[in-house]
Amino acid sequence: MNIYDIARESGYSTATVSRVINGSDKVTERARARIMAVIEAEGYTPNVFAQGMGSDSMKTVGVLVPDISDDFMSRAVSYLETGLAEKNFGMILSCSGFSKEGKDRHIELLLDKRVDALILVGSTYAGSTNAAHNTDMIKKAAKKKPVFLINAYLDCENVYCTFANDFAVSYDVTKRLIENGREKILFLTDSDSYSANQKKSGYLHALGDYGRTANPDLMIHTKNDIAFTKKLLSAMKPDIDACFATDDAMAVGVVKYALSRGISVPGALSVVGYNNSPLALASTPELTSIDNRLEKNCQDTLTRVFAVLSGAAAVPRKTSVACTVAERETTAF
Amino acid sequence: MNIYDIARESGYSTATVSRVINGSDKVTERARARIMAVIEAEGYTPNVFAQGMGSDSMKTVGVLVPDISDDFMSRAVSYLETGLAEKNFGMILSCSGFSKEGKDRHIELLLDKRVDALILVGSTYAGSTNAAHNTDMIKKAAKKKPVFLINAYLDCENVYCTFANDFAVSYDVTKRLIENGREKILFLTDSDSYSANQKKSGYLHALGDYGRTANPDLMIHTKNDIAFTKKLLSAMKPDIDACFATDDAMAVGVVKYALSRGISVPGALSVVGYNNSPLALASTPELTSIDNRLEKNCQDTLTRVFAVLSGAAAVPRKTSVACTVAERETTAF
Repeated sequence: MNIYDIARESGYSTATVSRVINGSDKVTERARARIMAVIEAEGYTPNVFAQGMGSDSMKTVGVLVPDISDDFMSRAVSYLETGLAEKNFGMILSCSGFSKEGKDRHIELLLDKRVDALILVGSTYAGSTNAAHNTDMIKKAAKKKPVFLINAYLDCENVYCTFANDFAVSYDVTKRLIENGREKILFLTDSDSYSANQKKSGYLHALGDYGRTANPDLMIHTKNDIAFTKKLLSAMKPDIDACFATDDAMAVGVVKYALSRGISVPGALSVVGYNNSPLALASTPELTSIDNRLEKNCQDTLTRVFAVLSGAAAVPRKTSVACTVAERETTAF
Repeated sequence: MNIYDIARESGYSTATVSRVINGSDKVTERARARIMAVIEAEGYTPNVFAQGMGSDSMKTVGVLVPDISDDFMSRAVSYLETGLAEKNFGMILSCSGFSKEGKDRHIELLLDKRVDALILVGSTYAGSTNAAHNTDMIKKAAKKKPVFLINAYLDCENVYCTFANDFAVSYDVTKRLIENGREKILFLTDSDSYSANQKKSGYLHALGDYGRTANPDLMIHTKNDIAFTKKLLSAMKPDIDACFATDDAMAVGVVKYALSRGISVPGALSVVGYNNSPLALASTPELTSIDNRLEKNCQDTLTRVFAVLSGAAAVPRKTSVACTVAERETTAF
């Protein structure tokens, strides 16, 4: 029996039932008595979660990632799993790949498994700037279950977003490279996602604010792969004195390219990665990398998941997490 | 309605019902007619999976790992998820940590979620040599659902094991280091698990077969952490000309230690890691690492999961996967 059954049997609204369960005094004595009679007759135990979840809840949250073998994704899943298990929630994990078809199919599969909420990890789910239709399935899912996006933003009822403030930290890092005397800063990315665009925007705004003109030759699309990026730069031999990459594997590829050509790091070439992954520590010299504080992002998301599932009235739909820079050996800011 | 209901209503055994469903001719015409009558009356559709899974199946497999943020674990989960999704199976992922309490609690949580089978990833679940009692919970779970161990071995009914042949490849690598003229081979590990012991055993047997005496000072327990291992060796300054580590982060720590002391790699020090993780490629020089062929291990496991769930008669309880060596810049065999 859930809150809807109690409302129906008592003849009061779910809002009134909710007030009685929560001990609010904004309810008449008559309503309280009638609702409590129904609750006691049915042996209903008020459960803070049952209100937002429905009586058929399996206490399970569906988590979707494009690729769990990616370090960023697997860390997110680890943080989410820990937080969910603490509340005795299970996690159904699904890996969608990056195609629209894969994402749509996996969102449907998760809804079929009767999850209480969906958490989508990674900015790929919010669509790229030139493919807004990619989010249709998320909007459809949000009509059935609350949806939580980690590191992406989508303006839609029942969709809650927590994201790293990629713009601000990208602006800050580019600014520091410029103030450090760097003239030709390579921007490397492998994505057109929401967060990749935020990073690019931070880079471009910093250049603009310091009176620099962005050089399209220094904005390169590569793969987030060490060997591929090293090879690409070895072929291009770009004229650069700094590099800001939107993920660590690309940045490590740049470091390896520099070593192979005898370019000193950070003397002649400063390198900054993103995600502060184990690769940053495995690199020699160790890689300076932006920490987008994934753990805090995941914790904030779960706080909101439990608030929504417990029927809390005002849950913010958009919050951001400030990033930090883990300074190591590939920069001398 | 499941096979048990049909058996009860028809008055025949589940074995006979199974034979009828599977079209076996080892059944009397009378039994077949009676069983088919029950099946048709109930509108039962024979489903190849429903036989091994029961009618309340959610088509979901529970996967337990100690730590999903570990690269080896997250790759395993990725392979398993892909293979399960292909058969429209969901995966409930749970992270147990390494303590017995955590493992026991998470196995129970997964069984509560009504999974069709359990897959436990990593040799930590088979207990270490000096803590055999650790497997009690697995044996208990196996009374309810089939249990599959990846990279571990446990001799128990309804427990199916696939594991990398760690002994053979560890023997082979140690032999190659010896034949390459290495005299003082450091063995580094962070674990007492089944697979860690197989690796140690391979190392010791190769030493023995070449008439070497194992030096306990060269068998060091560390953490699977780059910085920790580098620091430990910097403090110990062991007299070594090779290192065989049971995971890549330790091996990368050794490479960094060597670089910091001006020891040439592989000239004065050969280094071999394990798991062939992204760290091996991020290292400079790139790390030679044993590939325990996790993808094949996971695929073989899933083949067996589906065989058991479909009620196949003879599924082997123990199979092994041969490992290979990814040779890179830290060795010159």
